[in-house]
Amino acid sequence: MSRKPVLPLILSCWMVISFGCHRSKPAEFTPFFAAFYNRALTDQDVAWQQLSDLCRRYPRRLCGSEAAQGAVQYTLELMRRMDLDRAYLQEVMVKHWQRQPVEQALLQGARSQDRTIPICSLGGSVGTGPEGIRGEILEVEGLAELEQLSPPQVAGRVVFFNQAMNPTRLNTFRAYGEAVPQRIDGASAAGRRGAVAVLVRSVTNALDDFPHTGVMHYQSGVPRIPAVAISTLEAERLSRRLSSGEEVSIRFTTRCIQHPEKISHNVIGEITGSRYPDQIITVGGHLDCWDNSPGAHDDGGGCIQAIQVLSLFKACGIRPRHTLRAVMFMDEEVAQRGGLAYAREALGNGERHVAALESDRGVFTPRALGVSDGKIGFNRVKKYQHLFTPYHIAIIPGGGGVDIGPLKNGFPKITLMSLIPDDARYFDFHHSAADTPDQVHPREMQLGTAAMACLVYLVDRLAD
Amino acid sequence: MSRKPVLPLILSCWMVISFGCHRSKPAEFTPFFAAFYNRALTDQDVAWQQLSDLCRRYPRRLCGSEAAQGAVQYTLELMRRMDLDRAYLQEVMVKHWQRQPVEQALLQGARSQDRTIPICSLGGSVGTGPEGIRGEILEVEGLAELEQLSPPQVAGRVVFFNQAMNPTRLNTFRAYGEAVPQRIDGASAAGRRGAVAVLVRSVTNALDDFPHTGVMHYQSGVPRIPAVAISTLEAERLSRRLSSGEEVSIRFTTRCIQHPEKISHNVIGEITGSRYPDQIITVGGHLDCWDNSPGAHDDGGGCIQAIQVLSLFKACGIRPRHTLRAVMFMDEEVAQRGGLAYAREALGNGERHVAALESDRGVFTPRALGVSDGKIGFNRVKKYQHLFTPYHIAIIPGGGGVDIGPLKNGFPKITLMSLIPDDARYFDFHHSAADTPDQVHPREMQLGTAAMACLVYLVDRLAD
Repeated sequence: MSRKPVLPLILSCWMVISFGCHRSKPAEFTPFFAAFYNRALTDQDVAWQQLSDLCRRYPRRLCGSEAAQGAVQYTLELMRRMDLDRAYLQEVMVKHWQRQPVEQALLQGARSQDRTIPICSLGGSVGTGPEGIRGEILEVEGLAELEQLSPPQVAGRVVFFNQAMNPTRLNTFRAYGEAVPQRIDGASAAGRRGAVAVLVRSVTNALDDFPHTGVMHYQSGVPRIPAVAISTLEAERLSRRLSSGEEVSIRFTTRCIQHPEKISHNVIGEITGSRYPDQIITVGGHLDCWDNSPGAHDDGGGCIQAIQVLSLFKACGIRPRHTLRAVMFMDEEVAQRGGLAYAREALGNGERHVAALESDRGVFTPRALGVSDGKIGFNRVKKYQHLFTPYHIAIIPGGGGVDIGPLKNGFPKITLMSLIPDDARYFDFHHSAADTPDQVHPREMQLGTAAMACLVYLVDRLAD
Repeated sequence: MSRKPVLPLILSCWMVISFGCHRSKPAEFTPFFAAFYNRALTDQDVAWQQLSDLCRRYPRRLCGSEAAQGAVQYTLELMRRMDLDRAYLQEVMVKHWQRQPVEQALLQGARSQDRTIPICSLGGSVGTGPEGIRGEILEVEGLAELEQLSPPQVAGRVVFFNQAMNPTRLNTFRAYGEAVPQRIDGASAAGRRGAVAVLVRSVTNALDDFPHTGVMHYQSGVPRIPAVAISTLEAERLSRRLSSGEEVSIRFTTRCIQHPEKISHNVIGEITGSRYPDQIITVGGHLDCWDNSPGAHDDGGGCIQAIQVLSLFKACGIRPRHTLRAVMFMDEEVAQRGGLAYAREALGNGERHVAALESDRGVFTPRALGVSDGKIGFNRVKKYQHLFTPYHIAIIPGGGGVDIGPLKNGFPKITLMSLIPDDARYFDFHHSAADTPDQVHPREMQLGTAAMACLVYLVDRLAD
């Protein structure tokens, strides 16, 4: 673009002069909001390029992997080049689960030719052993239907969970929450009844050819059977065959290794607070992603947004009064060790935490900011709704996230906050190879970054 | 999807029983809204497939073209198969401008190899004549910069307008409005000063390789010189060459024909009102699109949404009290003849028009519904904001559109309304080959359709 807006520069000079030394009135927040948005929208290409680099250079960055450590170094270097007050690593002990790279299965039935389909072991699943698995497929819609069946009906079979996400739910996260138990607990429910493996319909709104993975857990005392995802299109095809009365069996071999735990890292960048250097506001996303995915929306985008929030404060010449930290959390996907380690260290180091904001719901156009209770809680922030309304952002009650949630235990007065983008497309890409940077729109991502910066700025001032 | 929601069916039966014969209270609107949304989100694939068929079978459906008449027949047949009370054509006399299919230009400069780039005549431009145009390129940012130049500085040159859309404008339609005068009036401003042609930077936020076209006008008494768009990436490259001091010339031949006017059609489908069959609520989009584009967001999507609104009323078993019309307007892009003809016929036929809703801002996730003043105007509709809030829709003042606007002259009390979707991506696709159905998300499109149906339903009841 050939136009270089000069407004941010003028504003930033004025702001340093006007607000350097005294308490401001709320009406005076407006130009700061404008400055953040102007700068963020001017820097669209820079922010998107950082995301694209992260995802192209370090896709499949599941915790414990080499790619994850590459992403740690990449984001550390990125923040070191930003002239922050600190940029450093924080140790996190993580699990290291690994699948063999290519996974596929053979479907066999009396009425059709053999068909090879892509499958994808669910995170944490055991492999089949070298001899593989073979079994007749038994379709159920979800856990509830399986629980109606007796062990003799299930024993020796491969249970196929085919519960679709309900498209009529307005909130796609709710639809996800309704369909995901089959993925998490399906193997235990089926294993308890003597099944030899489970196939799970990918938990996505999209009808596509990608298997979408995600974590699963084995309940104790139950035989551990392999659990794999199949794409929604394969699920639809398979269901039609089974509905027509055809007996279909499946055979596949997977190799999943649970390596010993190893050391990984959260990556942290800081701008020291001008008045309260010992009081911290955290903004973050998670750096790890599934090993079948570039992890653009989930959650490379959230990490770059957190980095960009610090970048906006610097570019606009605004020094936060509290210490502002961007945190790339390691291991959200498997055992949430990064968030737990961050909270544990914070408490152990005697830190004081004022607020934390997480972006881990995709990086589409933001619709709302969720704010929990706390010292500077929802009721206080909501009074400034009018500042956000011109940017089409609603302040809504309730905030938090998987990675910042553990802070609440040690810091009961902390305010937890969430970026809430439009959710129509998120699960199309979630946990799959489709989650590529070209599905992230630079402008939508930066509208989110600007909204985050405004909220952080507001909380920083309200906590003064 | 294997789940078939039964709620809409139950609701529709209950609604027919409960509301068939008496005036309802506002609180009772809620289940109707839910029914529309449930049905629309269940029918995502149907709606998107209709759009995809329209754009695949009848791309480049500029008014006067064979493709436009194909699209007229296609949408007429679509509505005839819906068991509406009426589906018919309304004659519209349209201009018929046509370019030769392949347009390209040769850039020549002392410091670089010759470079062939795609160009795209602006709608309404004259061609170059068979001998073509050749001239040295003179870059200006926009009309204001050109107006600083004297005729001797411009004479014999090809003026290159390179004003980018301002990325910091929150409202992309505003940024478009600021940059588009160079496209509309650039040829006259340059022709008046003796230029031989104009190149115009495509008016889009995207940095891409597509020339984006759009209408231009010649002012009377000014030499008519050819006007062509170049892509934003070519504009950036060319500007860098010129900024470095290189003299760059361009040569191109275009053939643009202004055929005699011909008869085309608006396409109209109707559900007759149960109480006020002679009072009309219109919902529409425009069927034509530019001749370099499949026209998915602009505005095949708006047409299919209008059809789907009628489909939702039927599928939910809700008979409107006023006559509900879906109108596919012909010729929004060139001379807005469809909207003018529709208003003229309405007045000539002694019709009564209560309200009209237009969808012509893309079919992304809806953010708001704009409502003008009028008998059932903004102040009245805004009282029902709480019904729309759960669906993340704001009721905002001001509504209308290019095609429904002319109704206001004949029917001063009419309420004009607009669907206002998220606008981050719209101009990426606008008036270019990039405006393909795969850029339309089925869920986002149907969230818009449902919002439109709810507003139409509310106005239908409030006008009772």
